Amino acid sequence: MTPFTLVAPRGRWPHNSTVTYRIGIINVTGFAGMEAARLLWNHPEARIVAATGRSLAGQRLGDAFPSLDIYGDFRISEEIDQSVDVVFSSLPTAASAEACAPFARGGVKVIDIAADFRLKEPGAFEQWMSGGQPHPAPDLLQEAVYGLPELNRDELRSAQIVANPGCYPAASVLALAPAVAAGLVGDQIVVDAKSGISGAGRGGGAGFGYSEVNEDVSAYKIAAHNHQPEIQQELANLREAPSPRVTFVPHLVPMTRGIHATCYAPLARSVTKAEVFEVYRDFYRDAPFTKVVETPPHTKHTLGTNMCLVHPSLDERNGMLVVVGVLDNLGKGAAGQAIENMNLMLGLDQKAGLDLPAVFP
Amino acid sequence: MTPFTLVAPRGRWPHNSTVTYRIGIINVTGFAGMEAARLLWNHPEARIVAATGRSLAGQRLGDAFPSLDIYGDFRISEEIDQSVDVVFSSLPTAASAEACAPFARGGVKVIDIAADFRLKEPGAFEQWMSGGQPHPAPDLLQEAVYGLPELNRDELRSAQIVANPGCYPAASVLALAPAVAAGLVGDQIVVDAKSGISGAGRGGGAGFGYSEVNEDVSAYKIAAHNHQPEIQQELANLREAPSPRVTFVPHLVPMTRGIHATCYAPLARSVTKAEVFEVYRDFYRDAPFTKVVETPPHTKHTLGTNMCLVHPSLDERNGMLVVVGVLDNLGKGAAGQAIENMNLMLGLDQKAGLDLPAVFP
Amino acid sequence: MTPFTLVAPRGRWPHNSTVTYRIGIINVTGFAGMEAARLLWNHPEARIVAATGRSLAGQRLGDAFPSLDIYGDFRISEEIDQSVDVVFSSLPTAASAEACAPFARGGVKVIDIAADFRLKEPGAFEQWMSGGQPHPAPDLLQEAVYGLPELNRDELRSAQIVANPGCYPAASVLALAPAVAAGLVGDQIVVDAKSGISGAGRGGGAGFGYSEVNEDVSAYKIAAHNHQPEIQQELANLREAPSPRVTFVPHLVPMTRGIHATCYAPLARSVTKAEVFEVYRDFYRDAPFTKVVETPPHTKHTLGTNMCLVHPSLDERNGMLVVVGVLDNLGKGAAGQAIENMNLMLGLDQKAGLDLPAVFP
Amino acid sequence: MTPFTLVAPRGRWPHNSTVTYRIGIINVTGFAGMEAARLLWNHPEARIVAATGRSLAGQRLGDAFPSLDIYGDFRISEEIDQSVDVVFSSLPTAASAEACAPFARGGVKVIDIAADFRLKEPGAFEQWMSGGQPHPAPDLLQEAVYGLPELNRDELRSAQIVANPGCYPAASVLALAPAVAAGLVGDQIVVDAKSGISGAGRGGGAGFGYSEVNEDVSAYKIAAHNHQPEIQQELANLREAPSPRVTFVPHLVPMTRGIHATCYAPLARSVTKAEVFEVYRDFYRDAPFTKVVETPPHTKHTLGTNMCLVHPSLDERNGMLVVVGVLDNLGKGAAGQAIENMNLMLGLDQKAGLDLPAVFP
Repeated sequence: MTPFTLVAPRGRWPHNSTVTYRIGIINVTGFAGMEAARLLWNHPEARIVAATGRSLAGQRLGDAFPSLDIYGDFRISEEIDQSVDVVFSSLPTAASAEACAPFARGGVKVIDIAADFRLKEPGAFEQWMSGGQPHPAPDLLQEAVYGLPELNRDELRSAQIVANPGCYPAASVLALAPAVAAGLVGDQIVVDAKSGISGAGRGGGAGFGYSEVNEDVSAYKIAAHNHQPEIQQELANLREAPSPRVTFVPHLVPMTRGIHATCYAPLARSVTKAEVFEVYRDFYRDAPFTKVVETPPHTKHTLGTNMCLVHPSLDERNGMLVVVGVLDNLGKGAAGQAIENMNLMLGLDQKAGLDLPAVFP
Repeated sequence: MTPFTLVAPRGRWPHNSTVTYRIGIINVTGFAGMEAARLLWNHPEARIVAATGRSLAGQRLGDAFPSLDIYGDFRISEEIDQSVDVVFSSLPTAASAEACAPFARGGVKVIDIAADFRLKEPGAFEQWMSGGQPHPAPDLLQEAVYGLPELNRDELRSAQIVANPGCYPAASVLALAPAVAAGLVGDQIVVDAKSGISGAGRGGGAGFGYSEVNEDVSAYKIAAHNHQPEIQQELANLREAPSPRVTFVPHLVPMTRGIHATCYAPLARSVTKAEVFEVYRDFYRDAPFTKVVETPPHTKHTLGTNMCLVHPSLDERNGMLVVVGVLDNLGKGAAGQAIENMNLMLGLDQKAGLDLPAVFP
Repeated sequence: MTPFTLVAPRGRWPHNSTVTYRIGIINVTGFAGMEAARLLWNHPEARIVAATGRSLAGQRLGDAFPSLDIYGDFRISEEIDQSVDVVFSSLPTAASAEACAPFARGGVKVIDIAADFRLKEPGAFEQWMSGGQPHPAPDLLQEAVYGLPELNRDELRSAQIVANPGCYPAASVLALAPAVAAGLVGDQIVVDAKSGISGAGRGGGAGFGYSEVNEDVSAYKIAAHNHQPEIQQELANLREAPSPRVTFVPHLVPMTRGIHATCYAPLARSVTKAEVFEVYRDFYRDAPFTKVVETPPHTKHTLGTNMCLVHPSLDERNGMLVVVGVLDNLGKGAAGQAIENMNLMLGLDQKAGLDLPAVFP
Repeated sequence: MTPFTLVAPRGRWPHNSTVTYRIGIINVTGFAGMEAARLLWNHPEARIVAATGRSLAGQRLGDAFPSLDIYGDFRISEEIDQSVDVVFSSLPTAASAEACAPFARGGVKVIDIAADFRLKEPGAFEQWMSGGQPHPAPDLLQEAVYGLPELNRDELRSAQIVANPGCYPAASVLALAPAVAAGLVGDQIVVDAKSGISGAGRGGGAGFGYSEVNEDVSAYKIAAHNHQPEIQQELANLREAPSPRVTFVPHLVPMTRGIHATCYAPLARSVTKAEVFEVYRDFYRDAPFTKVVETPPHTKHTLGTNMCLVHPSLDERNGMLVVVGVLDNLGKGAAGQAIENMNLMLGLDQKAGLDLPAVFP
């Protein structure tokens, strides 16, 4: 991790001359990879030196994705060698674990933005992720740290490989964690989550054409999405009692970015609104990117940032805690979170490169 | 209710010469009123003969609202006289009840698209609707029939005054009614509802400017919206047991029309998916506008129609029934429903004028 | 063209019992085909008896396209036999001409919603449409009538085969025709057209994913779109003088439906606003679906209808006539226009089935 | 212009400790003011020390506008004192000039994001901007430099007061300037411009409610918008010959940000595509924020940045140069441009704080 000579020519504004860390991105051509490239451009101590994107290898990054034209002559490459300090991967399931393993074993810090290192329970990967195929690197699966600093900051500081959270779990777990940890809520939790269409990935494929998706809301994979066990696993780690059961239903709404998770948890005991807020504020006292807010937050107030806004409230008539968590699915739900994790892994300021107001309107 | 001479000149296509019933619309200038005018244009047996809209009185309807230019020289008027057969009202709270009362007492059939005649429990109007002001016509409140034909078709046939359901309750009650009536579900129900922005009314006012609302999702009036007691009241009528408690959270999503209600109800007993579908299909066997569907429905598949699509499913891990109900908030959620009620009140075919495919894409 | 027994079971509302004409749709699975099915549902004298859609043959239409669920058990078929009275085709280039030819030769009236029968000049089909392949039915190409009733109503009444206009030319030609015919404008016309994304067809393919297209405007095929010679051909027919040259630039805007053509034509002589309006109103005096309006029209005021709104204005400083034409690209720009043409070909009322207010908001 | 003690507490990430210049924003509560605050947050050498916003004075900026919550305890103030180095103003017409004058006269550098200092010709302010009211500071009007660095970089370096360009003129002038300056084009230019709704300002007022504007395109102020003389004035400065006449028509399209100006200019002489590109590339060789691109650019590729993308092309059939210019109306069209101007006025790197990839998707 030594300073280095600039390999890839930078844009027109010659800042960042003191940059120290060299980053590789496996599959920069997905939305999460593109967003990592966007955010890293202004990171004070890290920069991309190589980025793959299979069918586009050889192309200028800025020709493939004009929003990244600022990268000048930087080109998408076939391979990333092990001289990098950190790799991010956003390949599809199983392919990502296979690509990550050699880097992690070779001492490169790895952040898997894909879902391959998230589910720890034996058999969960096969059941939820791969259609029965065994995990390509089960040893690394056990070693990987779940990349939510609000829960695991210390472990992340020394992690070799990080499982970056899914966009829905990031919003949902951050909304529910304080209440679950404090024992405020009982079982039979409902998470009703709404996502912008970019969660479906680039191009989107059949079913995500503009004309079909615009002016439409629909649920999908009702109680069958692989983010449900991820949410349940992380909530289970927060208390001794048996894992809370979670019903998770994702929805597509006609916007590009944003997750709005509305979480409903039956109260385990009587609480006041003031107590709930105290529990939440205590829990996130040291979290730079999760903020407890007093009015229902808007997804748009997080656009382009790494922020998660959490708003707890009580339905006293029905004995229900209702917590809203919102974030940008490509920010705190993917690439922003990955950079926050990188900062911790490299011993940098947790907020480096992520100190950004939201893009509004 | 005799045939009549055409007072208001019709459009360019001289059909509907056999039209029998004369309709008045109080406040045609709201979205619900405009949609009623749109749908009534092609009704085989009813036509608008007068429509008020305070500040616009005297204007051509088609100048005020170019989408209704087909109405030719028809003008917005100051008053509607009692010679009409039916009046629809979509005035604001309390004003609507005041405007409806003289018609109902004078023998004109009345359909209140506003919320004034919905909540029957003493004090509910004051608590939820009017900020403490007493109801302008408590006798009519008791007499009014809740206008959901799937529950009250026979009463609607002989009703003098109908409380047209709210858009959220229409979707939510239709989604939950079969399960509640059959005793499949217990207490502590959650209704997470997503609405297009037209639910906020014309112009929308502060907070509904395009730039603020576009690319944004937010919750509002969490567990404090007056559609919550409406949902609870209608579900309570379906069973002997105590009223189920309902947590209701509405959300705004960036589209113009559509309601997507996702309803979560803890199972009271073990059931199979097949049993659930049988219960639902039985319940809606004779309902022309509510259809039980086997895949998660899209709001857009109801756009411009009076359809409600209902999709029940089970989360067996969590002992939860999840039911999605979708509709067009201005169709089955307002004006379409009002016309269906009118058809019943006048002894017409329930589907008259509402026999429409959805506008797609 | 005799009355017939109902072959395909109808929806739940048993109207249209006196329907006389039997329609076939070749490729109901494109947006234009779907819109034709939507509009024909309520046509008083025509009904669909067969509709093809290659890969979906055998499926219920309502399963393939839930917005058309009202068609009940009607199924997509492999073939359409020649017993129909009219066929609409919306197949891709060349395939459409091939499919239409046997019907036209067998005496069935044909309306080609595709572009195969529009460009009359020898070589134009090869140059603009087919990449050099010769036209499959050059005799029918010469026989086909261009389906814009505002220009060719009488020829359409006796046509065997009709070339339904493109969506951009429909808006552009209707905006410019009165001025060109009256000799108000000279050469070097600019047509700047904005289209909703449904113009790109179903699914849309690469480049039309929601996340890419939303919140974006872009031009495409600048001065190279095959609607340019179509516009120029139709304007040329309106005057003796040499054909006006037209620069045509289409743009995609983030909405589903709608064409907004802004046309700029240098004035050939000095005129007043009043004269311009007189010329325009005279030209469209008998046109039921093109209306001259006094304020800039909104595409949304035509949504779901067969209307075109035309608004001429003068930029006196620059000696320029500016005319806006707006329509629904699937209505007057495709399926609505096709039904209007059908009405003329069958001797029905020109407005039959198209007498509809716009869907607003 | 001395270093200063931090008055307004900064956010959580303690960078920018070497910041040198103190900025005041008059009316931070408009979209342009908010965007200036967003962009200045990460400026390496400037920071906001005071910001007014009349009705909101006293409020935390982050409470008024949650997207700017990163500003911590910074509060909107009643006044800005003359100790600042630069003020930006985005007040309404006339009010802005009045507020700017005392600063400019007191030696504070002033950037007027409003339109008060743009039109130089005597009487133009009265005719186009103020409804006849005289200009509040005619001396400053003559002194003000038009803030387009691509045209006036040297004058901007020494300017006391800058007239920041309108969003439409920025895109249009940058698209046309090289061709006009090189004498490639003649008279009778057409600028057809499409804008996102944020151009209409916050809240938007009547006519900009989401439900009305969504799924709609419309033209407005056809050949009567005050950006027309602004475009014409700046083009006139580029050549000796008489000012080209420009027909300018703005349109609203349903997106939040973005301007797409499509410019049509009759060729004055025969040119090849290669010549045109050479002229354009030469003209913008030293411009860090205007880039000549070879394919039609997308507005979304500039979102959140200060970039303008320009794409010239030829319609040889019609002797027409067609140039597209796209930018973010709040970036290069307002606040980004203002900061670029500030950088020049303060002798900073022109790109300071503006070195940003676009937000995509």
